[in-house]
Amino acid sequence: MLVADGFPDFSICGLPFYVSDEVHQPSALAHRTGAPLAEHGIEVLLHHSATELRPAERTVLVRGSDGHEQSMRYDTVVIATGARPRRARIEGEDLAGVHHLHTVADGIQLRARVDGGRLDRVAIVGAGYIGLEMADAFVRRGLHVTLLSRSATVLPTLDPSLGELLRVELERHGVAVETGVAVRQVSSAQERLRVQADAGSSYGADLVLLAAGVEPNSDLARSAGVALGLHGAIRVDRRMRTNVPGVLAAGDCVETWHRLLARPAYLPLGTTAHKQGRIAGETAAGGTREFQGSLGTQVVKVFELAAARTGLREAEARAAGLYLVTVETEPWDHKVYYPGARRLHIRITGDRRSGRLLGAQIVGDWRAEAAKRIDIFATAIHNGLNMDDLNDLDLSYTPPLGAPWDAIQEAAQAWSIS
Amino acid sequence: MLVADGFPDFSICGLPFYVSDEVHQPSALAHRTGAPLAEHGIEVLLHHSATELRPAERTVLVRGSDGHEQSMRYDTVVIATGARPRRARIEGEDLAGVHHLHTVADGIQLRARVDGGRLDRVAIVGAGYIGLEMADAFVRRGLHVTLLSRSATVLPTLDPSLGELLRVELERHGVAVETGVAVRQVSSAQERLRVQADAGSSYGADLVLLAAGVEPNSDLARSAGVALGLHGAIRVDRRMRTNVPGVLAAGDCVETWHRLLARPAYLPLGTTAHKQGRIAGETAAGGTREFQGSLGTQVVKVFELAAARTGLREAEARAAGLYLVTVETEPWDHKVYYPGARRLHIRITGDRRSGRLLGAQIVGDWRAEAAKRIDIFATAIHNGLNMDDLNDLDLSYTPPLGAPWDAIQEAAQAWSIS
Repeated sequence: MLVADGFPDFSICGLPFYVSDEVHQPSALAHRTGAPLAEHGIEVLLHHSATELRPAERTVLVRGSDGHEQSMRYDTVVIATGARPRRARIEGEDLAGVHHLHTVADGIQLRARVDGGRLDRVAIVGAGYIGLEMADAFVRRGLHVTLLSRSATVLPTLDPSLGELLRVELERHGVAVETGVAVRQVSSAQERLRVQADAGSSYGADLVLLAAGVEPNSDLARSAGVALGLHGAIRVDRRMRTNVPGVLAAGDCVETWHRLLARPAYLPLGTTAHKQGRIAGETAAGGTREFQGSLGTQVVKVFELAAARTGLREAEARAAGLYLVTVETEPWDHKVYYPGARRLHIRITGDRRSGRLLGAQIVGDWRAEAAKRIDIFATAIHNGLNMDDLNDLDLSYTPPLGAPWDAIQEAAQAWSIS
Repeated sequence: MLVADGFPDFSICGLPFYVSDEVHQPSALAHRTGAPLAEHGIEVLLHHSATELRPAERTVLVRGSDGHEQSMRYDTVVIATGARPRRARIEGEDLAGVHHLHTVADGIQLRARVDGGRLDRVAIVGAGYIGLEMADAFVRRGLHVTLLSRSATVLPTLDPSLGELLRVELERHGVAVETGVAVRQVSSAQERLRVQADAGSSYGADLVLLAAGVEPNSDLARSAGVALGLHGAIRVDRRMRTNVPGVLAAGDCVETWHRLLARPAYLPLGTTAHKQGRIAGETAAGGTREFQGSLGTQVVKVFELAAARTGLREAEARAAGLYLVTVETEPWDHKVYYPGARRLHIRITGDRRSGRLLGAQIVGDWRAEAAKRIDIFATAIHNGLNMDDLNDLDLSYTPPLGAPWDAIQEAAQAWSIS
């Protein structure tokens, strides 16, 4: 296993919580450390990069941290080069004080900047998952945060009405949220940075975080003649095989089979990467298991809210030629007579004709089991359930934790009578 | 709608929380009140009991609270007489100070006793869901509680190793837990009660709560020639029709179709009753929808723990002639590096040969999403998934709320390699 940096099998999803100091040491972010990997018979070479893949001779050219290059033989190679921050085409991206948050090293560097003090104002460019988590993290560190979003609402992977709930939550915690802002340039003057947007507006900051999404890191594959697909992601079949014999690929560098659309998509997510890695391993070992597809299930915690989604939203499904209806409801997470009941905001999308459940989105208090409720929807969609089938599910009930018809069933019933 | 008492559509599952004073007014326990029912065109007759059903002439004899009797015509009648406390065959059951908790009136009476003060020690006979919830409730009210269980562990609907976790939780909160105790008699002396058990042991108390389970309240049906089945529950088909034309039945008074066993069982649960009521309504209105069966999914909160189950446990499945394996794991509810991670205790049961998922049990902190995780298992079992299929589910992940492989997938993986 060739690891370009010194952090094998780290949870890069945990980096925002290291910057926020909810996690104190970066070493805590390791899923596993080197020793257990070795126990499983995995030889881990840290600080080793694959610089060239030669499929014809089944070798990979490897450069160590000392600059020494060697050629290594393989029977099967799995490309798992992941993603990298999307080139935002912003002038000044390389200025001191302009950060990304993608690698563990990025996180350590960013945290050191925050720990070092002398920061007051931070600007975040991008209001996706990382942008929102980092707004939360910087506020926890006592900083003033401006969140700049190109889209009209924050977290544009949710429908606008739910995105608005997140905007309110951010503003309630002092974050200045600016939507519809296309950032073009960051400039530096007198140790301060200035973020300049299309429309002429500009925002001063001591630190700028660029969080405008990722793109597949597929250079190694492309150079080796591996076919690419959507957004430059490596094209793979459902056993994670590329077009080149002996070359498999998995994770944020590949196209993802979308279970509902029944075609490839680009959905770089840790959960999907884990599943694909497992499939690639089985294929390499002679197995025949197929990746069963992604539904784009995601959840993010932002201050006191959790925002979760699975499947298709109306816009996505309509683009796929489906005739859909989306209904929004606000059921309680548990019986309202028991203390602490909180309203969940649930949007569900279904095929108008067949009633097939196609997608769900939930925003609610992060202690209101929104995440695992999205997972019930995801399990239902995985199995092709109709909206009305949700009412047949034998879900658990006790007044402190639910209702005789769970919130997700209340949502389904509202859809059915709409 | 004939309602024997004055509480139509009340949440009797909420009664323990009224006794505990987590709920202040019994009126808060109403799912709906009379007015909304009337708006839907439902004529509700409170304090009216059906005393006799005459299917041949399609009438029901009804007695009002004033003792006046009248005969009412019907096209279709739905018997929803529910359950009643199981006759525990305990001498002294009718003594003052010996309580049940089944109706709203029981709850009001019990709470009045607790509010009245002068209570110090309470004995609870039965360590099922109600017994445990009431132990919690009485402790909240400052009382000393002795919990007496006939079975060897508390909550015998869970496997013993999980029941032990609940015992520890009860004891941690000062409850004296006595298992393997068969109560035979309650006697009264000098304003105190004494609970006497088989083996000669006895326990003093100011108040005794009998919570030894329920039995179907099927007298009205039986008298009318309606066939009964398991435990005296009304026999119904999956459209909730009895053997008598024009007579439907639903809820805790009927046999329940078990989805996994594909035969009737007696599983009196609020969730099932709601579903069956809906089916009975559809049948009455000319629909053809069938009840899709119960998995016996349940959850209960006891102090800081939630205990949940769905499907079959090893003993139940073995009795059904299946060859099973159960594996217990203790995954974290979310990434351990994020504050507040708690271990879940998960037991999953599957068919050894086919790998089919047959059941799951979870005990863990009540804020660790155990309830909705059981619901993911329930949704998977509903759809006939195999243990390994769980790994294909696209479940949500963020470090504060899960892991790239959710705890339920970790459990499935442990089962697969066992």
